[in-house]
Amino acid sequence: MEKSIRVFAPATVANVTCGFDILGFAVSAPGDEVVVTLKKSPGITISEITGDGGRLSKDPSQNTVSVPILRYLEKIKSKQGFDIKLHKKMPLGSGLGSSSASSVAGVFAANILLGEPLKRIELLPFAMEGERVACGSAHADNVAPALLGGFVLVRSYRPLDVVKIPTPASLYATIIHPHIEVRTKDARSILRNDLSLHDAIVQWGNVAGLVCGLLMSDYGLIGRSMHDVVAEPYRSALIPGYYEVKQAALDAGALGAGISGSGPSVFALSNDEKKARVIAKKMSEEFNKLNIGNDVYVSQINSEGPVVL
Amino acid sequence: MEKSIRVFAPATVANVTCGFDILGFAVSAPGDEVVVTLKKSPGITISEITGDGGRLSKDPSQNTVSVPILRYLEKIKSKQGFDIKLHKKMPLGSGLGSSSASSVAGVFAANILLGEPLKRIELLPFAMEGERVACGSAHADNVAPALLGGFVLVRSYRPLDVVKIPTPASLYATIIHPHIEVRTKDARSILRNDLSLHDAIVQWGNVAGLVCGLLMSDYGLIGRSMHDVVAEPYRSALIPGYYEVKQAALDAGALGAGISGSGPSVFALSNDEKKARVIAKKMSEEFNKLNIGNDVYVSQINSEGPVVL
Repeated sequence: MEKSIRVFAPATVANVTCGFDILGFAVSAPGDEVVVTLKKSPGITISEITGDGGRLSKDPSQNTVSVPILRYLEKIKSKQGFDIKLHKKMPLGSGLGSSSASSVAGVFAANILLGEPLKRIELLPFAMEGERVACGSAHADNVAPALLGGFVLVRSYRPLDVVKIPTPASLYATIIHPHIEVRTKDARSILRNDLSLHDAIVQWGNVAGLVCGLLMSDYGLIGRSMHDVVAEPYRSALIPGYYEVKQAALDAGALGAGISGSGPSVFALSNDEKKARVIAKKMSEEFNKLNIGNDVYVSQINSEGPVVL
Repeated sequence: MEKSIRVFAPATVANVTCGFDILGFAVSAPGDEVVVTLKKSPGITISEITGDGGRLSKDPSQNTVSVPILRYLEKIKSKQGFDIKLHKKMPLGSGLGSSSASSVAGVFAANILLGEPLKRIELLPFAMEGERVACGSAHADNVAPALLGGFVLVRSYRPLDVVKIPTPASLYATIIHPHIEVRTKDARSILRNDLSLHDAIVQWGNVAGLVCGLLMSDYGLIGRSMHDVVAEPYRSALIPGYYEVKQAALDAGALGAGISGSGPSVFALSNDEKKARVIAKKMSEEFNKLNIGNDVYVSQINSEGPVVL
């Protein structure tokens, strides 16, 4: 009998306002599911993809779910074959780390099927290779929280150094995905390549404040720190109604709000589940006013990361 | 009888490598002492200054010890007069927050003599006015730790928002003051006014890492985060032998090392008092090789701030 497992890996919010390229957190929903099966012969196949609207390639060298497995097998010098069924249960190109969820789910499943020759943290560089396929560079701010769960700091890329930051128990994320498309490439190219020392100081003051707030369970400090002078001023232009949606979240009691990753999804943090649901409703109303369809998600910070279902 | 108190306020290390303009910590020595006396008639006088080599003005509108008191008295609408004796027990222009120590000592003493009409944190804006006298702008990264003690984050200047960061018990600072002069103005003007987004990301990754390391008592993370791509590459040129001194500290087991404030003092952090003393010796030897006289100080992080002696 073939051995097979089904794995869920979560969506993630990268940047988290001031933490451009270095902070991200995982949520409980949405996310991707993969079914990975040990094959008797070598080689990776993707036998099924659902939920992608036909946009993803079944070529294992082109799909973010399989590339990490290929790199992983090279590393552990294994010729084991796998079949992958990928069930996209979250929107593509949404700024919610769709490619990261697939990358993490795939390599996490493969490692378990092989008896966990590598520790979870050791899978990170392979999962990052999935990001390279998706957006041209091996970013870790979605992949790391998708893999490790929780709130994750990517302190450094060279060498790679990630830190899981303990967070207060009552921290809720509200995420809204408006049905518009923002290409990651456009969201990147709209940014300036340099910034004033003054703006940089503002940003790292806030980054330090946010991290302190999380570790000290100081919700007020978390909120006061959630400002972004680097990406929001530019990327907000790609999201119709962005500032109204953000203000609606703040008016409804959010600690802070910002663009999720490179957008167009918008997220808010709050310290109460009921509040998080009211925030969802208010944010949704703003996009509705503009006749922009949207999906909302409310979840605690997901401290687990990927799980076998 | 005239009422009089003697107050000590500590030296401080600002920037702390990656925390340019936003981080600072206080040490137990050196520091300044002031004797402040309630006068029967209005007006501020500075009747004595020692330890300054004749460099400081006795004009109360020109000295960092008295300007904060003047602003404070305006705020609380008091016409109380004070006499101040200022005993500089630390080097001027050393990058150790000499002006901040005086500013904090003065206004802290005055507030106590008046029965503490303001809370300690409320004295911060007045102490910052002393910095404006000393260097032309009201920075808080020395004043805030001198006033509050400990490791302090200046999250924001507008509005002013400072956070005292709990630190591990066994965190020691080694400070070395080489007998050369670096003018704060020169140390400022040598910096670039803007930086690449790439460098900024490296810097705030490290800032977040340092803050995490402090709060999680993770000495390894503290050390890995102590890098500065913003000021050190430029200001190091103003300190002969800087990189050799830094390397000597690291070789002797320092977690990390960097320029204290705008220099020329150099500091190192370590997690053991004995190690901190060996580091002091090794750093001193490097400056000795260059025939640069130097003073070394070893101290725990000073969590108290100013004290009445």
